[in-house]
Amino acid sequence: MQKITLLINCPDRKGIVTTITHYILQLSGNIVYLDQHVDRQESVFFMRLECEFESSEFSIPEFENQFAAKFKEDYKLTYQLYDALYRPNLALFVSKYDHCLYDLLGRYASGELPVEIPLIISNHRDLEIVAQRFNIPFKYIPVTKETKKQAEAEQIKSIQEHNIDLIVLARYMQIISDDFVANFKHQIINIHHSFLPAFIGAKPYHAAFERGVKIIGATSHYVTADLDEGPIIEQEIVRVSHVHSVQDFILKGRDLEKIVLARAIKAHIEHKVLVYGNKTVIFA
Amino acid sequence: MQKITLLINCPDRKGIVTTITHYILQLSGNIVYLDQHVDRQESVFFMRLECEFESSEFSIPEFENQFAAKFKEDYKLTYQLYDALYRPNLALFVSKYDHCLYDLLGRYASGELPVEIPLIISNHRDLEIVAQRFNIPFKYIPVTKETKKQAEAEQIKSIQEHNIDLIVLARYMQIISDDFVANFKHQIINIHHSFLPAFIGAKPYHAAFERGVKIIGATSHYVTADLDEGPIIEQEIVRVSHVHSVQDFILKGRDLEKIVLARAIKAHIEHKVLVYGNKTVIFA
Amino acid sequence: MQKITLLINCPDRKGIVTTITHYILQLSGNIVYLDQHVDRQESVFFMRLECEFESSEFSIPEFENQFAAKFKEDYKLTYQLYDALYRPNLALFVSKYDHCLYDLLGRYASGELPVEIPLIISNHRDLEIVAQRFNIPFKYIPVTKETKKQAEAEQIKSIQEHNIDLIVLARYMQIISDDFVANFKHQIINIHHSFLPAFIGAKPYHAAFERGVKIIGATSHYVTADLDEGPIIEQEIVRVSHVHSVQDFILKGRDLEKIVLARAIKAHIEHKVLVYGNKTVIFA
Amino acid sequence: MQKITLLINCPDRKGIVTTITHYILQLSGNIVYLDQHVDRQESVFFMRLECEFESSEFSIPEFENQFAAKFKEDYKLTYQLYDALYRPNLALFVSKYDHCLYDLLGRYASGELPVEIPLIISNHRDLEIVAQRFNIPFKYIPVTKETKKQAEAEQIKSIQEHNIDLIVLARYMQIISDDFVANFKHQIINIHHSFLPAFIGAKPYHAAFERGVKIIGATSHYVTADLDEGPIIEQEIVRVSHVHSVQDFILKGRDLEKIVLARAIKAHIEHKVLVYGNKTVIFA
Repeated sequence: MQKITLLINCPDRKGIVTTITHYILQLSGNIVYLDQHVDRQESVFFMRLECEFESSEFSIPEFENQFAAKFKEDYKLTYQLYDALYRPNLALFVSKYDHCLYDLLGRYASGELPVEIPLIISNHRDLEIVAQRFNIPFKYIPVTKETKKQAEAEQIKSIQEHNIDLIVLARYMQIISDDFVANFKHQIINIHHSFLPAFIGAKPYHAAFERGVKIIGATSHYVTADLDEGPIIEQEIVRVSHVHSVQDFILKGRDLEKIVLARAIKAHIEHKVLVYGNKTVIFA
Repeated sequence: MQKITLLINCPDRKGIVTTITHYILQLSGNIVYLDQHVDRQESVFFMRLECEFESSEFSIPEFENQFAAKFKEDYKLTYQLYDALYRPNLALFVSKYDHCLYDLLGRYASGELPVEIPLIISNHRDLEIVAQRFNIPFKYIPVTKETKKQAEAEQIKSIQEHNIDLIVLARYMQIISDDFVANFKHQIINIHHSFLPAFIGAKPYHAAFERGVKIIGATSHYVTADLDEGPIIEQEIVRVSHVHSVQDFILKGRDLEKIVLARAIKAHIEHKVLVYGNKTVIFA
Repeated sequence: MQKITLLINCPDRKGIVTTITHYILQLSGNIVYLDQHVDRQESVFFMRLECEFESSEFSIPEFENQFAAKFKEDYKLTYQLYDALYRPNLALFVSKYDHCLYDLLGRYASGELPVEIPLIISNHRDLEIVAQRFNIPFKYIPVTKETKKQAEAEQIKSIQEHNIDLIVLARYMQIISDDFVANFKHQIINIHHSFLPAFIGAKPYHAAFERGVKIIGATSHYVTADLDEGPIIEQEIVRVSHVHSVQDFILKGRDLEKIVLARAIKAHIEHKVLVYGNKTVIFA
Repeated sequence: MQKITLLINCPDRKGIVTTITHYILQLSGNIVYLDQHVDRQESVFFMRLECEFESSEFSIPEFENQFAAKFKEDYKLTYQLYDALYRPNLALFVSKYDHCLYDLLGRYASGELPVEIPLIISNHRDLEIVAQRFNIPFKYIPVTKETKKQAEAEQIKSIQEHNIDLIVLARYMQIISDDFVANFKHQIINIHHSFLPAFIGAKPYHAAFERGVKIIGATSHYVTADLDEGPIIEQEIVRVSHVHSVQDFILKGRDLEKIVLARAIKAHIEHKVLVYGNKTVIFA
């Protein structure tokens, strides 16, 4: 049995759900998941399908060719097709903060994240011990202003060697260059420790504390060329008050960062995130 | 029986709670509420007391003089003293949006807000009918770029005539001038329809929609010379997703605006808000 | 132009979205909203459609006959068909608490609820003045143990006279008899001031306070023969702590009751609620 | 430098904050934290103090004796005195679910929980590998209906050998006997995977799913002789809808269980939880 996940968006038109589902059905596909949404403002149609194919003759590449041939041009349709049974490879980038790392590795080790984690990359050695606890290869690649280009080249080389599907910046404190990002469109998820678009850049908890907000948040997003400006995947908040110091903001924030990053990663690996413009459609 | 509410802040020092509570006690005051907080970072002490005085000889002005004489200079203490039994006068400023107005008037009519509302001021006539439903005097004061100075003078005159203690901008769409604001330090509460400091200024729901946030919010704050920059009193959020249009953001946001504005007004009239720097201490 | 809202549920089967949408399309209907959900556990399909029909020849009763003839038996399909442009008539039942009443009437008066409110029924006279503020007919029908049967008969007579589509128990304190309920299946919405199924019955805030919960809630649900057991439509919560007295619980709870009741009413009048078993599917 | 944490409750009376703080001050104690609350309904005073003592002559046992002698009887005061610099020993009880275990061990390993974890006890062997990852002694103590008494005796023996201060039931699936509980008053924290008092006992997610709630929760509480009835320490919720299966409830619930258990443990080890009756005062 094979299973595919298909994400589609195209200009809205009459009968499109009918047409596409009928197409799957006549290929003897069994639709086990269908979610669709029409942005009526922009007249754009979005759909996510999970389809099972029993036949041993079914071939995902062939399906893709035929599907694209039939729909891509006529419907001006953009699609992403995934083997739903494939376990993606994640690379985690970390610096010195370990809370997100421990949270992700715990979820991974308990089977909650159906992924492989063949690689942890860091610009410091501090978290090597954490990688060792979980028997994950740790690569120390220091980064300075002068060595950034080479460091990133080395990172990219490792990523390619390990067939990495998703890069997770788990409180990685280095800014990723535009060149690096250009290699991985919608394949880098970052956790920013504020409720974007408030407090972009450095020390957001300190900035939030200064402003005297009553709520702090964390945001996970795809990394783009613009710092903290990429499509938002998930956000979460917690209330704060005058009794909380900056340190309290930071500690409370850490629990937000963990949950927001984890939810974003899960949505991504389940292929429930469709990026459109600078925004995301997150299927249920 | 008389009752006072006393808000205090001063540099922290040993024994201050002891000293002040002892002072009240030896005046035969009964402390029915005490909440205190020390900002250890800045070494600042904050306290709120509610005290009852049975004696017919107790005089609030006299108490104030003696309290100030004893503590103001020696402790470098800032205080605000209120007659806790006094019902404050509110003036509501509105434009065309009526949701906050209806919400506040409903709370007022049902006795939830222990205030008087002698005055509703508006730059449009549309909401006069709402004021009439609740038998509240409505003053139409149109505002244009050219007439702003006179309009504000007229507003101030009405405010003074009615002994207004608190001005509530209930989705009032005109920007208040610095001169106006200067007359009413920490006496003007505004509701801004975003989660500050994100999306300041006009059309915040549209901006939030553009950014693709997954959470929208509303913020109530004291109005200062800087637009949307004043001390935040309360914030609340609600989750949104790709299924929501800008109109949905606006409709969901209205329920936030109502509750956030109401909570801020309640906290203010109960004298639970202490402004320090550009932030607020909100006592329980 | 005519517009219908169609709610459907039936045993899941292949091609059902295709079939139904195709049916609408060949009648020249324009589907402006489609949301569907499959409960894979129970193999049940749910769908909500909003369809516009331009043709002056379109007739909703005819459409219903033909739709039923085609699908009802073959698909073992249950449906609800509504004229989407029809403004439903609401009857509000109240006792002495006025907070939900003021909240609903404010929303109604500001146009937020696209309904008519021809009738407010109460077992006390206290809230007649509120009805008068909003020019809504108020009917005082006292209820005692002995007179309950007659009182309910009088209520039903009024409801029928005014062609009431939805009965809202807005902190109405009398228990509705099974006989009464039997007349109005899924047409009575109640607000219960607890987070069901916790604290059913009387004085839930007191019970919550006794239990020392850290969160209180409110629940809106369809009234059935079993007290507080009907299908839940919406719930909301707020955090509480040791600093809050029972009275604080009650006051905080009132804001929850208002928002939860309003959301439920809106979902119902927009025909976004589908009751299945003792649960609800709430379409987006 | 020595530091104590003092939790106090007694019948409310005039000048009590004054008296106690003055007592500390004249012992040259430096009060670095003070939070107090008066339950005016029951006329009970609660206070939490953190005090530093520089003098090498200061002795915590001596302080306790003198404090008790001075206040215990006259003020009918109940107190708990802790060495604030002491790192408590935790024993974690687990069965087969590993999500809470991984979450706690991650927080412990990253230094977020200032505790020692000398012991993990389980009625299954499955999680031994997790204990090994974190180099924590794992004790397998199977439990059947017949062997329960001996199993608990063995557990208690281990707990005593390791000077355990707090027992954490981290999704431990065995019911603790009354005899066991009697040894550890307010020293056993359990995580129950529902929003108490709803859905006590087994399979709460299934029960929540059946009821069709729109919100699910988790609760941490001290274990008492009555199942799921002990004083609640913390609760948290997440919204659910018809699109969620029981399995989705369970997965979403796991993130709640982790955060609620962690918060409860932190509050406990920071001595911020005061149990009064069957409720808790949680100091800020």
